[in-house]
Amino acid sequence: MDQKASHYHLRGRVWIEGPGGTFLGHGRVLLLEKIAELGSISAAARAMEMSYRHAWELVDSMNRESEQPVVAKTTGGKGGGGARLTDTGVEAIALYRETQADFETYLAERGRQLKL
Amino acid sequence: MDQKASHYHLRGRVWIEGPGGTFLGHGRVLLLEKIAELGSISAAARAMEMSYRHAWELVDSMNRESEQPVVAKTTGGKGGGGARLTDTGVEAIALYRETQADFETYLAERGRQLKL
Repeated sequence: MDQKASHYHLRGRVWIEGPGGTFLGHGRVLLLEKIAELGSISAAARAMEMSYRHAWELVDSMNRESEQPVVAKTTGGKGGGGARLTDTGVEAIALYRETQADFETYLAERGRQLKL
Repeated sequence: MDQKASHYHLRGRVWIEGPGGTFLGHGRVLLLEKIAELGSISAAARAMEMSYRHAWELVDSMNRESEQPVVAKTTGGKGGGGARLTDTGVEAIALYRETQADFETYLAERGRQLKL
């Protein structure tokens, strides 16, 4: 049987930085997922109740901090001017989700050792 | 030799929660260290450019979230009305420092695996 559970829990958050600052965090990854779902930065911004300018700045920042862009413009089609995730963008979401899951395992395991 | 270093770094922060909310985080531990150094909550608050009320609320919260109080009043002596860390308070600082150091090791090791 387990020992008595710790009275305490370890909580936290992690994010991934590139050479110039934040690359991927919780909100940025939600934005990438919305862009993938809705096919445009403006629609994703609306869905997240975020200004287009702020969403654009986050995408621009991710594209700068990544070795390859994560979001690309789409041309043609009805309406035009959409956006899609690149292969790197799809992999970036997976990388973040995997990193987050590993971190949650770390928090749970490390938290069980908190004795005072 | 090492493989090429990752282009990315993993950053983050952790804190310890008790049953009712945050118990120990970076700022709370700095406050405990200042109380230990200066012998009073009001002197510690001044040194940290924090209101006495806010410092008192943080101490009260830590005392509530811990199984044993971390700060106790001192009586007598010149001026009276001071505060000191209990043994539990001293151990709480050590627990947090150890947890933070372990987390930094985790971030460095996990960060080296970030490939995209």
